Amino acid sequence: MAAARAADGRVVAVVGATGAVGTVLLDVLAKRSFPVKELRPLASERSLGSRVHFGGRDWNVELAEPDAFEGVDFVFFAATGALSKQLAPEAVRRGAVVIDKSGTWRMDPGVPLVVPEVNAEALAKHGGIISCPNCTTIPLVMCLEALRREAGLRSAVVTTLQAVSGAGQPGIDELDAQLVATAGGAPASAPKVFRAEIAHNAVPLCETFTDNGYSTEEMKLQDETRKILEQPDLAVSMTCVRVPVRVGHSASVLVETERPLSAEAARAALARFPGIELRDDPARNVFPSALDAAGRDEVLVGRVRRDLTSDRIWLWEVSDNLRKGAATNAVQIAEKLL
Amino acid sequence: MAAARAADGRVVAVVGATGAVGTVLLDVLAKRSFPVKELRPLASERSLGSRVHFGGRDWNVELAEPDAFEGVDFVFFAATGALSKQLAPEAVRRGAVVIDKSGTWRMDPGVPLVVPEVNAEALAKHGGIISCPNCTTIPLVMCLEALRREAGLRSAVVTTLQAVSGAGQPGIDELDAQLVATAGGAPASAPKVFRAEIAHNAVPLCETFTDNGYSTEEMKLQDETRKILEQPDLAVSMTCVRVPVRVGHSASVLVETERPLSAEAARAALARFPGIELRDDPARNVFPSALDAAGRDEVLVGRVRRDLTSDRIWLWEVSDNLRKGAATNAVQIAEKLL
Repeated sequence: MAAARAADGRVVAVVGATGAVGTVLLDVLAKRSFPVKELRPLASERSLGSRVHFGGRDWNVELAEPDAFEGVDFVFFAATGALSKQLAPEAVRRGAVVIDKSGTWRMDPGVPLVVPEVNAEALAKHGGIISCPNCTTIPLVMCLEALRREAGLRSAVVTTLQAVSGAGQPGIDELDAQLVATAGGAPASAPKVFRAEIAHNAVPLCETFTDNGYSTEEMKLQDETRKILEQPDLAVSMTCVRVPVRVGHSASVLVETERPLSAEAARAALARFPGIELRDDPARNVFPSALDAAGRDEVLVGRVRRDLTSDRIWLWEVSDNLRKGAATNAVQIAEKLL
Repeated sequence: MAAARAADGRVVAVVGATGAVGTVLLDVLAKRSFPVKELRPLASERSLGSRVHFGGRDWNVELAEPDAFEGVDFVFFAATGALSKQLAPEAVRRGAVVIDKSGTWRMDPGVPLVVPEVNAEALAKHGGIISCPNCTTIPLVMCLEALRREAGLRSAVVTTLQAVSGAGQPGIDELDAQLVATAGGAPASAPKVFRAEIAHNAVPLCETFTDNGYSTEEMKLQDETRKILEQPDLAVSMTCVRVPVRVGHSASVLVETERPLSAEAARAALARFPGIELRDDPARNVFPSALDAAGRDEVLVGRVRRDLTSDRIWLWEVSDNLRKGAATNAVQIAEKLL
């Protein structure tokens, strides 16, 4: 493996280094003291000439092209699926290990889809590319796996409330511009990133519709959850909604386990699961909200309670979609490979 | 009945006439040409001296006290539950019919809880007070009843996304102030109306927690739905969430009917239900968002589709929480009584 080349530091390339996820990824690499000997921030022609600051110095942004991966140990793809499809095999051919945040490789049977707390063992089978799940899938499978280890898993009904940064910096900019306009009484700018005005709205469409009436985002939630949990018939029912929140995805989840679970047992199972922080004390008004997750690497979980008419368990989970939902999970994968 | 006193117009009192719901109620009375001969806008001492405009003239706001109901035909209570508990019986004693928007009388077995499109027949049994359901219950029971008439009803799993105006004008003011502060990079003002900062957030608590870990808002959704549909064991599973939206409650609903229903049949049943407007064409990106409902009297429904692993039906409904969720429903009740 390429990682063996450098004993005291790795050559790390980041494709999409200047985007919303790429920026957070550099921050996470630094905060977690990932051993970076050399950084290669890569981007499209549009970002050439810019620099990124990392590890006490500036690094020039270079063009994302095949030869840029020569001598690289790890490549993080935080860019479009099209770029990943084209360039990831080139990086692997040059001996790098690719950790991809795009949707391109997730359902490829030869590519492990990994949340380290849930299925790190899947990394053993990688052939150069490892895929990071979608930002809504990661916190969901962590909660489901925590409960499955305790009582098995039958089904989940999920409604997500997703932040605009799930659509990158353009999503944040669109919300901010519309909020400024409408605060002054003016009409909001026409939607470009989203399919409806997002300021002061709840929009029941993330990404685009597929032929079956579900959105691509919703289908990812089902398909990726099944693959990661290796439970191909798992009943996942889902609606994905965009809300006017800058950072922090939330989800309301109703879980059916194989064996009945008390709220206390569910709470304990969630609390001891790595990467989950339980914030759940209704008597003291303690619960996690989306903002609490922003800037954090943990998935925050609360509102754990029994359904009033069945053995199912309700929970509410929030996570930083740019960190645990993207950058942090990618860096954790690289840490496992070291 | 008091309504017989005036052949060509009624004496109408509105308690809480200057609040968020009261203001909309006057607008709805006017727009729907409710026959008002005389208006008595009533409020607490704080609002004395102010006036409201209605029917081409200004009306002085008077003190909400027992004698203010003398000679009144209809009283709309759009005020606190405490005021309604104290004053509604006084109004009834003076011959008025009370239509109450507070939570005070909803679960009283002697008080009909009415959504006119669903259970107008319950009005026949009233003893002077008629209760309006909570803003989240009204659109939900309309959707459930539409599907029940077609295929029976077994259960519903509901996640609501509720606008800040559900907490009245102070809720709107708190969101707006926090949005202004955070847009300028300042910290948001401390939460007062809500239990957490609401700007750029999703807060999984509406109102307050009860002893069973559910919120009062969530318990209303279950209890009121069961009463209105006269299905006391109906399985209603619910999480209620506050989102940074000014006006317009949304809900993501998974419905289990007694007999399997195709998405097409569900869509048709919803489309023909009075008060529901279907907006559902994924191929053309047609779906209703919360903003679409603002200022409208209809419940807008879309995203109607079969669950991928069961016979259940998903739908997404939005409604103006101040109109159909409050004022419009109250005025419709009065119209039925005319």
